[in-house]
Amino acid sequence: MPPTLQALTDGVLKGDKTALGRAITLLESKKKPDTQKADKLIETCLSQKADSLRIGITGPPGVGKSTFIEVFGKQLTALGKKVAVLAIDPSSAISKGSILGDKTRMQELAKDTNAFVRPTPSGDASGGVAKKTRETIILCEAAGYDVVLVETVGVGQNEIAAYSMVDFFLVLQLPGAGDELQGIKRGMMEMADGIAINKSDGDAIKKALVAQGELTRALHLFPHKENGWIPKVLLCSAQENEGLAAIWDMIMEFATITKTNGHFEFQRKSQNKYWLLQTIDAEIKNRFYQNKHVKSHIDSLLKAVMEGQISPFAAADKLLKLATK
Amino acid sequence: MPPTLQALTDGVLKGDKTALGRAITLLESKKKPDTQKADKLIETCLSQKADSLRIGITGPPGVGKSTFIEVFGKQLTALGKKVAVLAIDPSSAISKGSILGDKTRMQELAKDTNAFVRPTPSGDASGGVAKKTRETIILCEAAGYDVVLVETVGVGQNEIAAYSMVDFFLVLQLPGAGDELQGIKRGMMEMADGIAINKSDGDAIKKALVAQGELTRALHLFPHKENGWIPKVLLCSAQENEGLAAIWDMIMEFATITKTNGHFEFQRKSQNKYWLLQTIDAEIKNRFYQNKHVKSHIDSLLKAVMEGQISPFAAADKLLKLATK
Repeated sequence: MPPTLQALTDGVLKGDKTALGRAITLLESKKKPDTQKADKLIETCLSQKADSLRIGITGPPGVGKSTFIEVFGKQLTALGKKVAVLAIDPSSAISKGSILGDKTRMQELAKDTNAFVRPTPSGDASGGVAKKTRETIILCEAAGYDVVLVETVGVGQNEIAAYSMVDFFLVLQLPGAGDELQGIKRGMMEMADGIAINKSDGDAIKKALVAQGELTRALHLFPHKENGWIPKVLLCSAQENEGLAAIWDMIMEFATITKTNGHFEFQRKSQNKYWLLQTIDAEIKNRFYQNKHVKSHIDSLLKAVMEGQISPFAAADKLLKLATK
Repeated sequence: MPPTLQALTDGVLKGDKTALGRAITLLESKKKPDTQKADKLIETCLSQKADSLRIGITGPPGVGKSTFIEVFGKQLTALGKKVAVLAIDPSSAISKGSILGDKTRMQELAKDTNAFVRPTPSGDASGGVAKKTRETIILCEAAGYDVVLVETVGVGQNEIAAYSMVDFFLVLQLPGAGDELQGIKRGMMEMADGIAINKSDGDAIKKALVAQGELTRALHLFPHKENGWIPKVLLCSAQENEGLAAIWDMIMEFATITKTNGHFEFQRKSQNKYWLLQTIDAEIKNRFYQNKHVKSHIDSLLKAVMEGQISPFAAADKLLKLATK
């Protein structure tokens, strides 16, 4: 028998891992009674004022994100922090190969009583995963996790979603220079609060220093962030457990500066607004494109527009009229 | 008495400047009969297959855009091209101080029989100006203008709008390095097909070379464009009429490469699709936020969301239900 909502809520607020796991499963459910329960649970958890730090971690494949998070997470629990690790990876919904679903990964961290490692939530690829992750952060914080790490795979939309739910956005890179630096994705340089060049060990240190120089110069080409923080580029090696303390120091310094000048709180409020508008946006688009009249005409109109037979504006007008039929 | 639609259409297709000016005024009109006429005119003009080149030009204030466009435009008419100069500047709708509305600017070019200089269209700031500019391009091309320059002020949304209606996106910059380079705006490095460092003359040449180096290195940090083009950074001085021929050569080279590999045509089709989706997006949002139930509840819900009293998703749900009341 599933626990009552009250029992589940009490369990989450007491920091019980099993209850937290069940609460997240409730969030993921698509059944209406579950959804209603989940909404109530979220509202209760929201009312708990938690003093947490949300850190987004992204980087290209092969950069060593899992190892980094495992070692970084262990470092934080050793400091007495309670650490939750979440993920945004819609691809797992399709391929079933989740970045965190692989149970053999982050085993050390998962065993830690002060850590909670959750595989990426199942959900549709169209923003559903991000929404669940955003809600899961609230549950974890209510359960007493004071550092939440949100891992994401390096695919545009996911990064923006992660960026929009964390306080600090950390980008992992590999040692190398110029073209070797693997094209940095759109907006990445503007999103990064810090860049960590992982695998900076052994022979790679020379290359890492070159990358550090190039990335630092490139960062200077962008306007200063409004929050008064100047992004840093640091070297580290998760494998060798080197440089990770400096990364935590950087994040702490960021938190101190932005909490003092009010930007920490301001950013969280802006993010709440972002998710409200984003959710509305996604749903009104969904309603429009699911409209049966729109559905039956859009392909032919799109084709005519692409071929230049009708102006995009005239075609839009036709579809908008069809939608209100 | 205004000309008939037929007379106006004939005039535009013959390349008559007065007719073209009147046709654009018709586009800008908000009266329903005018709108219907304008739609028909656009459809007729679309059916004219024009071999044109659309060039977006942007840059920070003080970079010398007007002088650049005047000298560059004269150079093109001297090569036998017919050049139209349009602008996207929604701020002019509010401040009435249009970037091209100032009649004393680009006087030389405006007098040229092979040039057509149009002040920024009046329209609301919310995408209306961009739409009119997009439609004006079609009229100008039907009137035989084979190079269309779209000037834009350096404000995020306008640049994206301009970028989405041109074949080649040219970013003007000032000589200087690092912080002096005036923060390059979000996405600019990814959007640029070419960067021209204007005012590279006299004592500024040394600084210009530094800027060229920095920008070239920074460009290399981004993934290669799918169209096979590697953006270039060139020096020029519009004032001294130096380096502008090389900029035209670069644009011609771009056109040759992308026409050969099919990306020129592909990009135009994608842009048509973009404007269709963009127009629908703007209108369905407009309908939603103009809904009277939404209007009367959104402020209080937004406040509750920003203060963390209700989750953004629950608030969105409430508003979405109100909209269908």
